[in-house]
Amino acid sequence: MASSEYTIPMPPWIKTELENSPTVYPTLEERMRQVIKFSQHNIDHKTGGPFAAAVFEEETGKLVSMGVNRVMPLNCSSLHAEIVALTLAQLKLQTYDLGGPGQPCHQLVVNWRPCVMCYGAVIWSGIKSLVIAGSGSELEEITGFDEGPMNSDWKNELEGRGINVVDDLLTGDAVRVFQSFKSRNMHVYNSREG
Amino acid sequence: MASSEYTIPMPPWIKTELENSPTVYPTLEERMRQVIKFSQHNIDHKTGGPFAAAVFEEETGKLVSMGVNRVMPLNCSSLHAEIVALTLAQLKLQTYDLGGPGQPCHQLVVNWRPCVMCYGAVIWSGIKSLVIAGSGSELEEITGFDEGPMNSDWKNELEGRGINVVDDLLTGDAVRVFQSFKSRNMHVYNSREG
Repeated sequence: MASSEYTIPMPPWIKTELENSPTVYPTLEERMRQVIKFSQHNIDHKTGGPFAAAVFEEETGKLVSMGVNRVMPLNCSSLHAEIVALTLAQLKLQTYDLGGPGQPCHQLVVNWRPCVMCYGAVIWSGIKSLVIAGSGSELEEITGFDEGPMNSDWKNELEGRGINVVDDLLTGDAVRVFQSFKSRNMHVYNSREG
Repeated sequence: MASSEYTIPMPPWIKTELENSPTVYPTLEERMRQVIKFSQHNIDHKTGGPFAAAVFEEETGKLVSMGVNRVMPLNCSSLHAEIVALTLAQLKLQTYDLGGPGQPCHQLVVNWRPCVMCYGAVIWSGIKSLVIAGSGSELEEITGFDEGPMNSDWKNELEGRGINVVDDLLTGDAVRVFQSFKSRNMHVYNSREG
């Protein structure tokens, strides 16, 4: 009946890929390019949906964690890339608040705007900066993914909570991954199949 | 640099407590009473915040999973009780959609309304019923917990997505746990400490 723990495995390719990648990404473009690359890898390896997210030290660009969507392979609907990346960063740094005292500001870089669940997760994580490749209707139109009932003023709400938002960074590159995903007839799950 | 997995342990007392508890809860009151009891246990044992959530088979009342808040002990801001309970249920049943074909309808019972993150998690989980002890300002007033920028029409949004909502079940019992939490000067984290 009662589980004493649960374990969330990362795709095997991530470790190798990260070991062969830089550890520091000085510009926002370099950070986003790396995230988009991992979103493509995740569909190429069939290890989840076309999403990746990474936590960086905002000032230095040091990579803290990289997460990818794991919903379907692991049978867990909350394993969006943002939740995975934020969890890995918090467990690594041993803090539930990435914006807590005595540490550098942290930034989350994602290949599209968060869904309503990840919007909340971003706020609770303590990050001070959110960088996204886009926030328009392209994602939902191309992939069928549903972002859920977002607060219409979501961007200002984040800003009001001390989270700076940078939007529309390498949008075309991000969209190309969604199109590649779509062209393979791959499936995005977020509820309402039953 | 790269973690190959992460593990989320449950508090040791949960296993014993569940082994000594019924496996079936015919009425909604019995389900909520058990959830509220576990929210109290979680603060008594100092294993997290004053929140518990359980997934039941809606018709039979069979308990599928019980989760409690693990944010501060495990250093992970997304480990709200709802996320833990839904994850345990999905991993146990090996499905990312608790409302998928060929299975009974599932219900999530929680000792207060979800924050914005868990609101999204509830939608993506596939559950068809959400039962909460309350949704008013008591929780935020007593504990200082922040529910985040919720969609103001959140309840109708859930109903429109096929999730039936039952509110105000054993509200007074739930509030007493928050008051007990408050009286011990315990701390609820959700961001903005830094």
